[in-house]
Amino acid sequence: MTAMNFLEKDQKLSLDKLRNVLVRLEDTIIFALIERAQFKQNEIIYVQGAFPFDNEPDFNGSFLDYFLLETERIHARVRRYTSPDEYPFNGNLPAPVLPALDFASHLIPNKINVNHHVKSMYLLNILPSLCAPGDDSNHGSSATRDVECLQALSKRIHYGKFIAEAKFQADPEKYTPLIKARDTTALMALLTNELVEERLLRRLRRKAEIYGQEYADESDAEEPAPVPSTGTYGAATNGTAPSRKRRRSSTSDGTKRRIDLDMVVRLYKDFVIPLTKKVEIDYLLLRA
Amino acid sequence: MTAMNFLEKDQKLSLDKLRNVLVRLEDTIIFALIERAQFKQNEIIYVQGAFPFDNEPDFNGSFLDYFLLETERIHARVRRYTSPDEYPFNGNLPAPVLPALDFASHLIPNKINVNHHVKSMYLLNILPSLCAPGDDSNHGSSATRDVECLQALSKRIHYGKFIAEAKFQADPEKYTPLIKARDTTALMALLTNELVEERLLRRLRRKAEIYGQEYADESDAEEPAPVPSTGTYGAATNGTAPSRKRRRSSTSDGTKRRIDLDMVVRLYKDFVIPLTKKVEIDYLLLRA
Repeated sequence: MTAMNFLEKDQKLSLDKLRNVLVRLEDTIIFALIERAQFKQNEIIYVQGAFPFDNEPDFNGSFLDYFLLETERIHARVRRYTSPDEYPFNGNLPAPVLPALDFASHLIPNKINVNHHVKSMYLLNILPSLCAPGDDSNHGSSATRDVECLQALSKRIHYGKFIAEAKFQADPEKYTPLIKARDTTALMALLTNELVEERLLRRLRRKAEIYGQEYADESDAEEPAPVPSTGTYGAATNGTAPSRKRRRSSTSDGTKRRIDLDMVVRLYKDFVIPLTKKVEIDYLLLRA
Repeated sequence: MTAMNFLEKDQKLSLDKLRNVLVRLEDTIIFALIERAQFKQNEIIYVQGAFPFDNEPDFNGSFLDYFLLETERIHARVRRYTSPDEYPFNGNLPAPVLPALDFASHLIPNKINVNHHVKSMYLLNILPSLCAPGDDSNHGSSATRDVECLQALSKRIHYGKFIAEAKFQADPEKYTPLIKARDTTALMALLTNELVEERLLRRLRRKAEIYGQEYADESDAEEPAPVPSTGTYGAATNGTAPSRKRRRSSTSDGTKRRIDLDMVVRLYKDFVIPLTKKVEIDYLLLRA
């Protein structure tokens, strides 16, 4: 099991265990992206006020905003956001209708929540290269998948708090003076391991490649849909501008892809990793 | 795009298009199962009355029942169940808060809903072999995944209505006398194509095998996680009783699996396919 159990009090924050959670969350995120990519962009669901919500005359958000808010209201009632690894996109959510749970307090008290960044990067930078343009009328299905993508990305990024805490605990002498000096440049250097990040991006590309492939029946193709060997990753990374625009690229052997590999790598490289580090730094600055 | 657009009026029901939707839903179902399998069984969330829902004193269902009902209430408000391919697990849901959409009416009016069967088979026959026993306190995460599994299975199975309608339209002369005679045995024979079913089960096993594999980093293994060739499927199907009990089986080369392949095949063979056919027959009997 890679899932954390925050009710276990004697569980120490282990970087290995946290790393396993993050690796597992990559699959959740890729699955969610592939699920969203089967529908068109359906841009109207992101336009403020485009849908008339009769029961909420004061509501002027988008269809997705409504759907996300109502979903979070339920999740709040079953105490989702009392769990130390869950962060809502909306404020003013209802109180839990279930008795409070006694979670292990691995983290220092903090109110860090970067979900406005998460939503913004998802809508502006991910969706346009994830889905084919146009409207296929699957608005609810698209919004459901959007919520899953957003929640998975949010969870992954806010795990930065646990990573930061575990790293701090492993070496407080090194971190404390930098935190006191508010030396974010040195902290960033300390938190960054380029080899680990490169390995993450290679692993991510490989997973997106394998999960995102369309499998033909044996009778539809001479050979089973092949999975490229590690050797092709380097070559695939050389994709230049034109291939970045394609949503559904084809492999050299003609099998179809349901998501663009460069897009998935870019999502992590340009957004998920930097946002996670922002969470780590913000958290450490409170750790003095 | 494999998704149906039920707002397109001139779209004829094509068996090819419907088949593509069903093939794509296999991936959705396998993804959802893999996502649920990362958490333990957490049996308490299926026990009636085990959680005290303060705001609903009359509610005596399980945590999952509560979660599913509240989720369906939202989805009903954004008109999910007005779509001809979506069927709720609960009755008495709120009316949509959005204006009605004018869907194409491919089907004859009917009230067929087999979701009580879907839920029952999921809880009794799937969950015990999908998840490791025990409680890891991830109750909300498990219930979220349960809802996704249930909704995907329900959608797949109720597509039987469209399949039945398309098959009827393709050959009304053959179907009409059997329907009038209420000859369900002959109808079942007419609807069954064993070759297609065998191919489906092979494809399903292969997808579960590939999506459910745990990928090690290049540095963690000498070779990239191999994808078995078609040749191994026959062998894998020979799994006998002991392997059926395992939730996480290992492949012969030592890579780990996140779901049991036999369980996924059994899910379709013993439940999804028969339930879909029940929907097809029930629908045809109304088609006289």
